Formats: sequence, C-alpha cells, structure tokens
Amino acid sequence: MIQLSEAILHQVIKKRPPISHKGTFGRAVLIGGNQQYGGAIIMSAEACVKSGAGLTSVITAAKNHSALHARLPEAMVISLEDTELIHSVLETADVILIGPGLGLESSALKLLQHVLTNQKTSQWLVIDGSAISLFSKHQLSLTYPAQTVFTPHQAEWARLSGLSFDQQTAENNRIQQENLGAILVLKSHRTTIYDKTTCYQNPLGNPGMATGGMGDTLAGIITGFLAQFEKNTDTIAAAVYLHSLIGDTLAKNNYVVLPTSISGALPYYMKKYVLERK
Amino acid sequence: MIQLSEAILHQVIKKRPPISHKGTFGRAVLIGGNQQYGGAIIMSAEACVKSGAGLTSVITAAKNHSALHARLPEAMVISLEDTELIHSVLETADVILIGPGLGLESSALKLLQHVLTNQKTSQWLVIDGSAISLFSKHQLSLTYPAQTVFTPHQAEWARLSGLSFDQQTAENNRIQQENLGAILVLKSHRTTIYDKTTCYQNPLGNPGMATGGMGDTLAGIITGFLAQFEKNTDTIAAAVYLHSLIGDTLAKNNYVVLPTSISGALPYYMKKYVLERK
Amino acid sequence: MIQLSEAILHQVIKKRPPISHKGTFGRAVLIGGNQQYGGAIIMSAEACVKSGAGLTSVITAAKNHSALHARLPEAMVISLEDTELIHSVLETADVILIGPGLGLESSALKLLQHVLTNQKTSQWLVIDGSAISLFSKHQLSLTYPAQTVFTPHQAEWARLSGLSFDQQTAENNRIQQENLGAILVLKSHRTTIYDKTTCYQNPLGNPGMATGGMGDTLAGIITGFLAQFEKNTDTIAAAVYLHSLIGDTLAKNNYVVLPTSISGALPYYMKKYVLERK
Amino acid sequence: MIQLSEAILHQVIKKRPPISHKGTFGRAVLIGGNQQYGGAIIMSAEACVKSGAGLTSVITAAKNHSALHARLPEAMVISLEDTELIHSVLETADVILIGPGLGLESSALKLLQHVLTNQKTSQWLVIDGSAISLFSKHQLSLTYPAQTVFTPHQAEWARLSGLSFDQQTAENNRIQQENLGAILVLKSHRTTIYDKTTCYQNPLGNPGMATGGMGDTLAGIITGFLAQFEKNTDTIAAAVYLHSLIGDTLAKNNYVVLPTSISGALPYYMKKYVLERK
Repeated sequence: MIQLSEAILHQVIKKRPPISHKGTFGRAVLIGGNQQYGGAIIMSAEACVKSGAGLTSVITAAKNHSALHARLPEAMVISLEDTELIHSVLETADVILIGPGLGLESSALKLLQHVLTNQKTSQWLVIDGSAISLFSKHQLSLTYPAQTVFTPHQAEWARLSGLSFDQQTAENNRIQQENLGAILVLKSHRTTIYDKTTCYQNPLGNPGMATGGMGDTLAGIITGFLAQFEKNTDTIAAAVYLHSLIGDTLAKNNYVVLPTSISGALPYYMKKYVLERK
Repeated sequence: MIQLSEAILHQVIKKRPPISHKGTFGRAVLIGGNQQYGGAIIMSAEACVKSGAGLTSVITAAKNHSALHARLPEAMVISLEDTELIHSVLETADVILIGPGLGLESSALKLLQHVLTNQKTSQWLVIDGSAISLFSKHQLSLTYPAQTVFTPHQAEWARLSGLSFDQQTAENNRIQQENLGAILVLKSHRTTIYDKTTCYQNPLGNPGMATGGMGDTLAGIITGFLAQFEKNTDTIAAAVYLHSLIGDTLAKNNYVVLPTSISGALPYYMKKYVLERK
Repeated sequence: MIQLSEAILHQVIKKRPPISHKGTFGRAVLIGGNQQYGGAIIMSAEACVKSGAGLTSVITAAKNHSALHARLPEAMVISLEDTELIHSVLETADVILIGPGLGLESSALKLLQHVLTNQKTSQWLVIDGSAISLFSKHQLSLTYPAQTVFTPHQAEWARLSGLSFDQQTAENNRIQQENLGAILVLKSHRTTIYDKTTCYQNPLGNPGMATGGMGDTLAGIITGFLAQFEKNTDTIAAAVYLHSLIGDTLAKNNYVVLPTSISGALPYYMKKYVLERK
Repeated sequence: MIQLSEAILHQVIKKRPPISHKGTFGRAVLIGGNQQYGGAIIMSAEACVKSGAGLTSVITAAKNHSALHARLPEAMVISLEDTELIHSVLETADVILIGPGLGLESSALKLLQHVLTNQKTSQWLVIDGSAISLFSKHQLSLTYPAQTVFTPHQAEWARLSGLSFDQQTAENNRIQQENLGAILVLKSHRTTIYDKTTCYQNPLGNPGMATGGMGDTLAGIITGFLAQFEKNTDTIAAAVYLHSLIGDTLAKNNYVVLPTSISGALPYYMKKYVLERK
C-alpha cells in the first residue's frame, strides 16, 4: 500500500495551457439532490466548479435550483424530471457524478440505469452515496468499469462488496475491487484507493471533517479533477489527498471543518501546488 | 449559585477521537419555522451545524427550504407536512430541538405532542420558543424529564412556571424546576441554568446581543453540544457560556451582535478551547 | 441651516442599558417589495436589523421571502396578501416603514391608507419611495404628522410639495414642510432635514453612492434608529449622517458603494461612536 | 492592431461628478436566464451593478428571481413572460444587454426581434450568447448597428460571420465586422475588438479564467460601462481590459478564477484607476 504525499499534487495539478477555453477543462454533469437532500448535490457542485471543471451542469429536483444559483451561479441546472433534456446533456458530458442526495426512489434507480447503460467510451463515471446503495441493492452492472469510480464509506462498501466491517482488510478489499472492475475510493478516517494495479492510502484527514456533506464535497472534487486532468487513478488520488490536506489546514483553527469551506479554499491550494512545482 | 467560567469549556469541549465518522458526533433533528418565522429555525440550524453536530436535519415549512439550503447546504430538510417522513427521521435522532419559529397552530401542537410522547430513552429533547408556549397552554407532560431541556426567556418562564417576573427568584425557580423535572435554561441578561442538583449562573452576555434570533441560535448550540458531547447539564452550561463569550468578543467592535455572526465564529472558538486545554 | 457633524452621532447613539432584552430596542415593521422591486425592501430590512432594531418584521410579496431569509434570517416575514396578520402585526409596531419597492398598485394604496389611518399615538411612521408617490397622487392625510417622516428624493418632493426643482429652495421647502407637518428628509447630493424648528444639512455623501438601493438602505437605518433611540429629528439626522459617513469611508476604496455594504458596516461604526464618546 | 494598456482605464473611468444621482449613471436592462441557464444572467447582473450602472433591471425567468435577489438585492426583476412590463422597461433603458443564458426557444427569438426593432437612437445594445446564435440562425438585422455590440466567442463568431476558425484572421474579421456594422468583441485567450476605424487587442487574460460564466460577466461589465461612461468603442475596450486585469490579479493566487470573484473586485479596481490618474 503506497502512502500518498504532496508529490501526487505536483504530478496531477497541471499548469493550464495558455491557449485554452472552458471546453478545454471538461464538461461535468452532476446528478443528485432530491426533495430532502438537496444540500448534498449543492456541495458537490461547489467542489466541482471551484476545483476548475470548465462547465458544470447539475441535474437536481427543481426545488433545489434557487439555492444552488444563490450560492453558485456558475453552475447550470436541469430538473430531475426533465428526461429529454437530461439525456441530451449526458450525451456531451466528459465526467458524470451520480448519487449525492439522490435518494432511493424508483425514479432515481431508473436514472442510474440510464447513466450506466449509456456510458460512452469517452466518459468517466463517479458513483457516490445513494447511487452506490441502489447499485448494490439492484445488482446493476457497469458498461466501462475501468473508467468508473465508486466512493463508498464503509457501510456502503459492505453492501457493495458483501464484506462486513471486520472483513474489510486491504486484501479482501482488493479482491472485491477486482470483481467490481471499477476504481474504489473507500472512505474512512484513512481513505484507501484501489485499482487493479495500485493501492494508495491517504495519510491525511482529521475528525473535525466528520460532518455531513464531507463526502459530497470529495465526490465533487474527484469529478472536477477528472474533467480537466488525466483520467486515471492518480488524478482521483490527488483529489482525495487535496481534500484532506485542506481539511487538515482548516482544522488547525476550526473544531469542525465545514465542507463548503474546503471548496472555498480549492482555487488557492491548487494554485499553491502549481507554483511550488515550478 | 455557581458562576460559570472558561473551565466549563475546557471540561466539556473534547478533543475528537481520531477514529470517528459523522455518526460519532450525533444526529440532531430540529423542528420549527412556519410561514412567518422561517428565519428562526435557519439560525438554529446554523448554530447546530457549526457547533459540530454530525448530521443535522431540519423539519420546517417547505417555503423555508430554499433559504436554508442557500445559507447552509450542510443541513437536510423535511417539510412540516410530511408526517410519515418526520416520524421516521425522529426515530433515529440523538437530540431533538423543537420550537424556534414553530408557531402556535394546531399542527404545531400535534407535532409537539408526537415528539413528547415518542421520546426514547436514548434521546434528549430541547424545548424552545413556541413549543414552550404550547406546552404551557395545553399542560402537556414529559416522557423523560431528566433528559429534557427548556430554554424559556422570562415571559415564557412565567407561563410555564406560573411565577410572575417578581416571583422569579432563584429559590422559586428552583422549586418550579423540580416540579417540571426538566433542566431549565432561564434566559435573561444573566442566564441561569437549573437541574435538580446544580444551579449555574452565566456571568457573560451584553445588551448588543438583545436582538431577534439570539435565542434561536443558543438553542441550536445547545442541541449541537448535546449531539456530540456528554448529555448532561454541564454540556448545556458550556453551550450557554460559549454563546455569550463569543457575543461579548464580537460586541467589542459591534454595536449589535448578529446571531448568525456568533454561529460563524463557533468552529474557531471551540478549537481555541481545545488547544488551550492541552 | 445647521451643518451636521459627528456630534450628532455621539449624542444619539447611546450605550445600551446592561439590563435589557430585544423588546427594549423596538419592534420595526417594514412594508414594501412587490413582484418587481423585492430587493428594495430586502435592503431596508438589512439596514434596519444591522442598525440594531430589536425585532424586525417585513411585509412583502411572498416571492421575496426566500431571498430575504437567505440574506437575513434575523427578520420575520409576512405576505402582502395576508391582511389579517398584517393588521395584527402593525398593532404592536413601534416604528413602521412603508414604501420601498411597494409599487403603485391599488392594493398598495389600500395598505398605505390602513397604515395612515391606524397610526397610534405610540407609533412613528416612515414614508418612503412608492408610498410618497401614492400619498401625493391621492392626496392622503396624516394622523400624527409630528411623528411621521417623509424621505423623498427631489422628484418625489416635487410631487409631494408642488415645488418644481428650481423652486426647491430652503425657504420654500420649509414652508411646504410646515404645511405637511411631518419631518422631511429631502435626499440629494447634500441631504437636508426639516422639522418645524430645525433645519439640518448633511455635509457628507459622495457620487459613488448614486446607485439603486441607496435610499432604501437609508430608510432602513432611519427606521432602526427610531426603533431604539429617542424618537425625534436628531435621531433621524444621525441616521442620515451615519449613512453618508460610512458611504464616504467605503468610497475611499470603491468606485461605487453598494448599499448592502453600508448596512454590513453599521454595527462597527455605531460601536466606534459609542466607544469614542466615553 | 493596437495593444490595450492601462491607459485605456485612465482614459475611460471618470471621476464621478459631485452633483449627481443614480439616473446620472444610466439605466441598464439585462435580458436572459431561462429555466436552465439562470446563473448566466445573475452573473451579468452582478458585473453590471458592481461596475457602477445607476439602475439595473433584469428580465429573466421567474424561477431565477429569488436567487438573483439573494445575491444582489440591488437589481430589479421582471419575468420573461411579462411582455407588457418588458416593453415599458425597455423604453427607458440607456443600455440593453440581451443573451446570457437566454436560450434558443421561440419566445427568446421573439423578444430579441422586439429589442432589435425597437432600439432607439439614444440606446445602446449588447448582444451576447444565445442572442448571437439566434441572430445568426434567423439572419436578423440591426436598427442602429453603430451603437450595437456583439460579444461572440470563436464558435459564435463562426456562425455570425461565416468564417471558419482558420479563416478568423484579423483581416477577415475586420471585413465581416464592416459588413455587420456593429462593434465586435471577439472573445478568445487574446480578445480583439473591432469597429470601423480601430482594432484593439487585449494583451491580458489567463487560462484560469476559462470557466463557465466568464463571458456573462464580461458582458455585464461592458453594459455597466456603457451605462455610465461615454458610449463608444474605447469604453468597451476598457471593460474588456479591466475584466482581464482583475482576472490576472486573482489568478496569481487562484488556480481557477470564479467569474463572481471578478465582479466582487470591480469597485476596488475602478477606484484604483481613478485615484492613480489624479
């Protein structure tokens, strides 16, 4: 198991090419936020935009649009009910995040099935929160596992892998990740990341980050990073590491670290690592 | 009567255990905010989240959801009308706050009765604002008084205890608190806290804090503290003391202290007291 | 004509009494904000709360409630259509502001007539914006002129007084103010204030303040000051002076001064003048 | 081709006349923001207000009003469906911006046609985003080309001019601009500005600005500048230059530059250039 370090940030976060436009940095589409959990997808969207995705569209219940725009006019919105528009927006996505606050309703399942079935060879998929639970319960399958990321916490991983908490050893996790085929970001106080050749451990993170919305924010950073940087496990690992690094920095002066305060600090910390690399 | 001091903060605000997750820091459910007083429960929610509750759900009129999400996407929302979902969310709560901006409608009474009747042995209850008035008027009764907190100001206490303002001496308050059985946070320019063995007086607080929403914010901090720290009177006292301590600090440079500015400063001041303790 | 100076702030802005509660600092009720001009009453409300009114209720179109709560949960809301509740809330008001963004619809006229007719001997009234136009057009009359304030800009004053711009000399203004009986705050690049014995001129203010919403903000400060300080012309003059003083300070580093940035600075500047006075 | 420099800011951004009112600095009317792209017009409005337009009205889908007010109560709102009110507000506009997030629906076309047909000799028109696409597709024509500005990015310019990306040389652009008659702001990593006598190149800008909403923000600054300064190409050039200058300054410490952070810095940077000029 390889310990992540600042080197992963220097490696992944690239100086932007001088001649570029918003399309250069990817189209991210985020799906989540039902009647009860709208805040989740709002936090994912803030993380995605502030980590530098070129264009961010959010598919969420209509009741969440106003709050999202009030916090983040940089994102575009589509209602969860607007099936035709959803299908057309998904066509042009570079990265799709599905799950934060999506809920377990049958409409959510139907949308997840659509996303899984219609994944394109050019698209990456991040499956988080409710979407992991739906995927497990309905034993869904992946179209392009190698370009799919799951971000479960330990209870979600238990449902997805069949491994009890005690059985979640590095070796067992690795075996189940291979069965799944997708990249696994297993969130805990020391998050681990598995693909078929590598296993990373994140040495950072702190208990002040143990608050609702922290996972939604991580999912948004992973999505923003995949939209603009190389689409691979290292990029995902850099997102995980940066999320905790900012969290640790904020925790020096804050008993609890608000997820949205991590997103707010992303532009500064990403620049810092580009400047340091020279 | 024991004067509170910084020692109560050092005692109550614990260094968080390194291996923990959001569930470790409690599930808080907040009920309030009708058509007119939505701001009250929004302020309680900000205080609860920023004081470190692990998960915060807010049961409030649907019209308040968008503003709540716009300020605080970290909280989850449930409509006051969604009875089935309310009952299920209350089942899993560690601490329930009812009252800020709830109003006196019959639906509010019904909800309060449900909360009182269904309190579990594992749950603490904070009764504030409108819920105190309803409790007094309808002579309701408590299921677990020893794990219930009332936070009246003097007029609400008059209705609850039958004591006129002049009669609200420490001794009379203590007798009525014993009759009630619950912990009493009697708010005034020098708030006092009574349980069956102790009486604390808060020496802090200032007239710049005499503005609408200050009590809603205090109720939210008490709820957030009970969600994550030991469930007892000292924890409540620490919440009261910290609320005033931040208020006094802000009042050095502000003629009026906005309730939401107190909530914003919670993560910093809570950390400060953990660091000082060593 | 007396030039206002910092002395008016030292005189009016009192150190708050140590034993006090939110009721001590007054109940303000603000009426305005139709379908098009909701921002106006939101700006008035921010100014009123941040200048220290004890309790602020805002009567505005339902569509504005969410934005108001998102910016200012400290305020309570009532719909312009909720006649019964409006009448009951007005009963308990210490100061009523009517007009910012109210519009000229017949429902607005009806509400203004209600407010004028039902003014109590204990209540002060501030008439601004649309309400001045309605008052002029329909030749309404005042119940307690001596405790009523008009805050017209020059075009509104022309309609109210019958004086053309050229005729708006200090002497003519004074005569028309006497006819009206109310206190007059005549807004311009050098605002003047008239009552039956005094005429103040505000020497402050700058062209960076010439932007939409500045008058709504001033009306909110006047209302907040009347709610908590002595109800007289000096208190109104202090509100006018402070509004411009903050505007001039902000204009040192800002080409345009946003009205909401003035409100944000109120608690700091009010404290400053209390501290300086000793 | 003339390289823009700070001189254009010193030339265009005037010290405001001491005797002035909000009308002195122009009435801007902004049209855009449908069900999906409401954030676009919100960002334009923030840029317009914060660059100093005297009065800003925003014609946008009703669902966007609350978020706009929550961010910017300084702006007034009108629904896209409220045809009568739209027509009356357009009558009094000094500058009209149409297009950010407007969409391509037939109602959008109809509104654009109304704006084009009813442009007055005293009004300037800024055509951006969706409105450029509609103009190209339906081969619409201008009433006063010399007081109309188009702000296409390269793909929109291709549709408008018929020039492929490769054909978009300075010479070809100039010829097509002459055919069009309007002032052309051709956005790219080095934006160029053409009118019938001048061609400016903007030497500033950076790839951190390549994110959704940056163009909406630029359109808002151009509109705000035209509302208050001399209505000519130099004023437009100053807006372009300042937008990039702030973007470059923010990019020193931010990997991605949020469009709304540029708007937030406008009052400070505009003042800076007035003070430096002496």
